[in-house]
Amino acid sequence: MHLKTSLLSIVFALTTNTATAYEWQALPEQAPAPADNPTTAEKVELGRLLYMDPRFSQTGTVSCNSCHNLMLGGDDNRPVSMGVHGKTGGRSAPTVWNSAFSSAQFWDGRAASLEDQARGPVTNPVEMGMSDLEKAMNRVRAIPGYKPYFERAFGTDNPMTVDNAAKAVAAFERTMITPDSPYDRFVKGDKEALTEQQQRGMKTFADTGCTSCHSGPAFNGPTMAAGTGFFMKFPTFEDSDYVQRYDLMKDKGRFEVTGKKEDLHLFKVPTLRNIALTAPYFHAGQVATLDEAVKVMAKVQLNKTLSDEQVADIVAFLNGLTGGFPEQKLPRLPATPGWTLIGSK
Amino acid sequence: MHLKTSLLSIVFALTTNTATAYEWQALPEQAPAPADNPTTAEKVELGRLLYMDPRFSQTGTVSCNSCHNLMLGGDDNRPVSMGVHGKTGGRSAPTVWNSAFSSAQFWDGRAASLEDQARGPVTNPVEMGMSDLEKAMNRVRAIPGYKPYFERAFGTDNPMTVDNAAKAVAAFERTMITPDSPYDRFVKGDKEALTEQQQRGMKTFADTGCTSCHSGPAFNGPTMAAGTGFFMKFPTFEDSDYVQRYDLMKDKGRFEVTGKKEDLHLFKVPTLRNIALTAPYFHAGQVATLDEAVKVMAKVQLNKTLSDEQVADIVAFLNGLTGGFPEQKLPRLPATPGWTLIGSK
Repeated sequence: MHLKTSLLSIVFALTTNTATAYEWQALPEQAPAPADNPTTAEKVELGRLLYMDPRFSQTGTVSCNSCHNLMLGGDDNRPVSMGVHGKTGGRSAPTVWNSAFSSAQFWDGRAASLEDQARGPVTNPVEMGMSDLEKAMNRVRAIPGYKPYFERAFGTDNPMTVDNAAKAVAAFERTMITPDSPYDRFVKGDKEALTEQQQRGMKTFADTGCTSCHSGPAFNGPTMAAGTGFFMKFPTFEDSDYVQRYDLMKDKGRFEVTGKKEDLHLFKVPTLRNIALTAPYFHAGQVATLDEAVKVMAKVQLNKTLSDEQVADIVAFLNGLTGGFPEQKLPRLPATPGWTLIGSK
Repeated sequence: MHLKTSLLSIVFALTTNTATAYEWQALPEQAPAPADNPTTAEKVELGRLLYMDPRFSQTGTVSCNSCHNLMLGGDDNRPVSMGVHGKTGGRSAPTVWNSAFSSAQFWDGRAASLEDQARGPVTNPVEMGMSDLEKAMNRVRAIPGYKPYFERAFGTDNPMTVDNAAKAVAAFERTMITPDSPYDRFVKGDKEALTEQQQRGMKTFADTGCTSCHSGPAFNGPTMAAGTGFFMKFPTFEDSDYVQRYDLMKDKGRFEVTGKKEDLHLFKVPTLRNIALTAPYFHAGQVATLDEAVKVMAKVQLNKTLSDEQVADIVAFLNGLTGGFPEQKLPRLPATPGWTLIGSK
């Protein structure tokens, strides 16, 4: 398809008599990139290797892909991820798919860009567990086969830096997008792409008010300047039984980063693309199924009680946000000939 | 190349004046398969998915590929592997590359086939940690997208069994072979494929006596009937300083399986193909570098002290046993739409 068409917002007026016509948008065929890190094939190639390589974690067992699995929904299907030595943290791994369309990263938006985000897990003691980024980078530098990849991507003047590694991973992630879901095909005019139930669910999704937060092409809010972040209070209606049942007040959200009272329980609105693949749900995987997640969200965010049929319809619609995934090769990672980076014991 | 040629042992007489002409063999282009599990494209396709899928481990974090990484040397570059909850065992993960050419599996040969081997790690508490194989299989059965793969591979009459899953993984592993190394090209007549140093190392390797154990196309001993296993005592010369330094008597080897005195410290002779990629070395990763591994092996197995130059030459030769690796796609694993297999907590 033509890039020009794909980059435009595509207005799709629902033909059913909905109260408020909602502007449905297809995902662009390309993700935006910052001016100081244009996406190039060479960076993407290097970024893919770094993303898949477990040797930069303390134990040599955890890569980006361990928790953000590109063979699955871009996450790990766990409530909270498991890093080095079987350690776990307090939040659920967000999907890497379409993370390029978020204006801030992490559940609390503490990273302004994918470049910033890529640095976080490497030194997080419950994720990759390295003591500092330079030590991780020294492992990369110790692998002779990485040098030509860095040189092709960033030139020959001292290219093997933490900054460039983060840029490469971010560039790669900007290609990990899924612009060809049934929903996208439907919005672009293929009326057979979504089933009748899915189309009903689409209308219910908008009419219920889900789109007040989950708007835009990635269903994570309006397109905003890089670093902005689109946050909402969760839960909004604190008196729901669900709040107790799923311990929804435990995590103070963005407040943990800023310390500002107005950020209490604020969370980034996550994308709903590929949401059917990323159970369990919410910021700590509190809810096991998508049905329950839809029911709880309607209640604690919109104070609405959905019927089982409405839930089923919305879930059917959300399943229409899955894929299509780009084909890629299983990479061969540059070797460490004759010795190991991980240590002999 | 023609299959017929490739499956024959290719005799290559060294042109240098070696005392004993050694019969160098190229790796066959295809691995042998047992009569009850012929390799088919459909099994290989299913086997690849199962091999890469972490959801059948207790924590959802460990797949076959976690410890036998196909993006690397078919292992994890760790002394001993790290399974669920960061647990470790007592032995080093052998490479999956060319495991199809071993007549028994595991360091102690306790599995007679790849089919047998595939069952082991799933219920090993320090590997994938499932309580039993049927529970692991229930997870596979719970993923709707796996059914058509099993049906295509094994027919529609109750195909989703542990037996068939093991057969598929084994069939896949029989395609994970590396018959196009520089060594293979050299043996087949390309005299430029190995450097002068590598050719010198090849002669030293044979003259020193390494080939008395590391013989055959996979350098893991003579071709034997499936289930036989080719074992050697390690260490053979127990009075070497290395035995103390690297604690080589600690593991009783095959004795742990059979309880027979004659099996004390017997280990399967491992393949040397891709050995440059699988540091650290020996059955518990006791030695960090290939140089040291060569030196120690010559001493404790053959009672020979190699010069630094001889070691360097042999290591250069061993580097010629690396690759070429088959290209393959990063698979998309069948999804668990709307829920998770791993559990909500």
